[in-house]
Amino acid sequence: MVEIAVMGYGTVGSGVVEVLHKHAESIAGRAKAQIHVKYILDLREFPGSPYEQKFTKSFEKILSDTDVRIVVEVMGGLHPAFDYVKACLEHGKSVVTSNKELVAAKGAELLKIAQKNNLNFLFEASVGGGIPIIRPISQCLAANEVVEIAGILNGTTNFILTKMIREKTTFEETLALAQKLGYAERNPAADVEGLDACRKICILASLAYGKHVYPEQVHTEGISGIRPADVEYAAAWGGVLKLIGQVKRMKNGKIQIIVCPMFLSRESQLANVDDVFNGILVRGDSTGDVVFYGKGAGKFPTASAVVADVIDCVKHFKARKYLYWDDGSADYVENYLDNHVSLYVRAVTDDETLAFQNIENQIGAVTRLTRKGADPGEIAFVTKQATERELRQGLKTLLGLGVQVQNTVRIGEL
Amino acid sequence: MVEIAVMGYGTVGSGVVEVLHKHAESIAGRAKAQIHVKYILDLREFPGSPYEQKFTKSFEKILSDTDVRIVVEVMGGLHPAFDYVKACLEHGKSVVTSNKELVAAKGAELLKIAQKNNLNFLFEASVGGGIPIIRPISQCLAANEVVEIAGILNGTTNFILTKMIREKTTFEETLALAQKLGYAERNPAADVEGLDACRKICILASLAYGKHVYPEQVHTEGISGIRPADVEYAAAWGGVLKLIGQVKRMKNGKIQIIVCPMFLSRESQLANVDDVFNGILVRGDSTGDVVFYGKGAGKFPTASAVVADVIDCVKHFKARKYLYWDDGSADYVENYLDNHVSLYVRAVTDDETLAFQNIENQIGAVTRLTRKGADPGEIAFVTKQATERELRQGLKTLLGLGVQVQNTVRIGEL
Repeated sequence: MVEIAVMGYGTVGSGVVEVLHKHAESIAGRAKAQIHVKYILDLREFPGSPYEQKFTKSFEKILSDTDVRIVVEVMGGLHPAFDYVKACLEHGKSVVTSNKELVAAKGAELLKIAQKNNLNFLFEASVGGGIPIIRPISQCLAANEVVEIAGILNGTTNFILTKMIREKTTFEETLALAQKLGYAERNPAADVEGLDACRKICILASLAYGKHVYPEQVHTEGISGIRPADVEYAAAWGGVLKLIGQVKRMKNGKIQIIVCPMFLSRESQLANVDDVFNGILVRGDSTGDVVFYGKGAGKFPTASAVVADVIDCVKHFKARKYLYWDDGSADYVENYLDNHVSLYVRAVTDDETLAFQNIENQIGAVTRLTRKGADPGEIAFVTKQATERELRQGLKTLLGLGVQVQNTVRIGEL
Repeated sequence: MVEIAVMGYGTVGSGVVEVLHKHAESIAGRAKAQIHVKYILDLREFPGSPYEQKFTKSFEKILSDTDVRIVVEVMGGLHPAFDYVKACLEHGKSVVTSNKELVAAKGAELLKIAQKNNLNFLFEASVGGGIPIIRPISQCLAANEVVEIAGILNGTTNFILTKMIREKTTFEETLALAQKLGYAERNPAADVEGLDACRKICILASLAYGKHVYPEQVHTEGISGIRPADVEYAAAWGGVLKLIGQVKRMKNGKIQIIVCPMFLSRESQLANVDDVFNGILVRGDSTGDVVFYGKGAGKFPTASAVVADVIDCVKHFKARKYLYWDDGSADYVENYLDNHVSLYVRAVTDDETLAFQNIENQIGAVTRLTRKGADPGEIAFVTKQATERELRQGLKTLLGLGVQVQNTVRIGEL
């Protein structure tokens, strides 16, 4: 029998305990050992819970109990999760977490401690919920160079964008609906401003290229500035608007990484990933494109990914799973303004003909987009490819020439 | 350093040697050991090959060389592959294979020998080429009960069907094109008659439910009977026509498994898997639907999956990977005629009005489909759900009532 502790009894934590209970027999068969939850750490009281006896408010009790060989951290947040996880690894306990904030901020440091102590630190559930992605990238694609990873990594924003596209509603209306349905939190900033997606692409980038990428190194834009007009222009252009996290390795060893809304062609393998679903495209030099698709969040998908990691820990007490990356560095991420992009631009002007003359003078030929019911003076176009810096400078000069830019969205090449 | 042998220097075998050579450094980093190809077994001569020194025609030489710890079998076919693989496992060598025919026919037997000798027998490349699917099912979904697996498992037939849909060409024309492009073999039977897809769904079913399913137990229909009219009716019905391999566990412990063309709703997560791509849907009780998508064949996708298995072998000389299933049994597969299905039917009749009266009398209410340019007397409809046996019997009686059935396709519920 293997004793474990679960830290945090929220949505995911209670799901983990339930999955371990419900599938106890088949899990024992797969792990070749019974898995027994000895403690559940939570500061709250759960009177009447069938697991009442297991609850504790004392982390020290878990830490000092040498019977506990695996600790599941599903509290979320950076503190005290980081201190707890670090202490567990330093005390000879393997750790499984679903905490993307923790892995994105402290992954390299924790992996190093795990390696030193010959323990496992696993986090399949931190990206894509129940979609297996960490393991396929680290194992199955071991014989590939990863050329690029791009994904719809946040279900909340994908739900909002899908609704805006289908039902022509505003961002604010749709966010309110998402909150009502429980898909968005009362404070939706981490989702809608792209931070959640940013943490996930950081984890995938760190894993794929072996060097930590910190969220603060990544240019991140959310979807709160997206207007129905932008969604309509995306359709007029022949595509859809999605919030994408993307990373590519450059020839100079640096990486390009960004989180932002993008226009995707309808042919893109991510264009049909709708509603709360996530889709992650991994482009390998040998495998070509492989796409992983499923619900990226939710109690049971996430819990089952956590439990799968626990089973893997049990099976690998002797042979450590190879998951590792080095510390990051300040110059590892290319400035996003140096990336070559093409931009969709929505603007207003008093004089369309003159406006397009000026636009062409400042930033070269553009492809004009139109939509039914456009506001008076509204224009929209897609630029040629250039460095983002050049394009932004060109757009800035337009302000003095009677063209007020209202929104820009990058054109994704996926 | 780990010495390996590669048996078979065809498309996949030469890809394996090339990937091992090209990515030697990163592979050594991941495997924590250099991997060195000591022998390549092939009966043909490869004069001038950079690997000329490694070629041998003697399997005995490989078998008796105790330095060789891993053997890659990429010869294909059942014999002599089975005898060679069995002998390798009995002589203490782990085996990696891409040979679906071998795994589908002899998986349980070979896994048993591997287990007895504490060796690995890995076959990620046997299903889905470069798409990771064996490992995710066996590991990441360890905390799930697999409710159902359904997939587009054969790229050749998917290419043919996609072309038939888009370009309104006949099966025969499109097959000839696929052969010209190298997507279909000169003898295309294994692909177009569904046998290849059948082997793959057998492997997935065996893995997911722990008991061997043999290809001869699976009702298998290919696509050679599909006419452009059927493709058009699929569109009229609101979907697409795909060759699907599907398995579900029933409450009585048996399984329903079938390989056949199906109408899929456009909303289905497999409906947009086009061209030579494969898509595999795994429905877990906790994760919900997870879809894996990518190129299911090809030299480098398949080779990189083989190499990933080799790396895994090297990392797990001590801890065996848990891949196992039991022998099958004759009564394990439900007779497909007892499955509840709804059928699309295309028929000809001299008297449409009378025909639909008779149809309703024999098999109940149906949904009628129409298409532009239908042949004189051509009718098409979709039945209600019933057991396949009842529907087939009903259709048989129609022949005596002036309705000649020309083709039927099952309606997929995916």
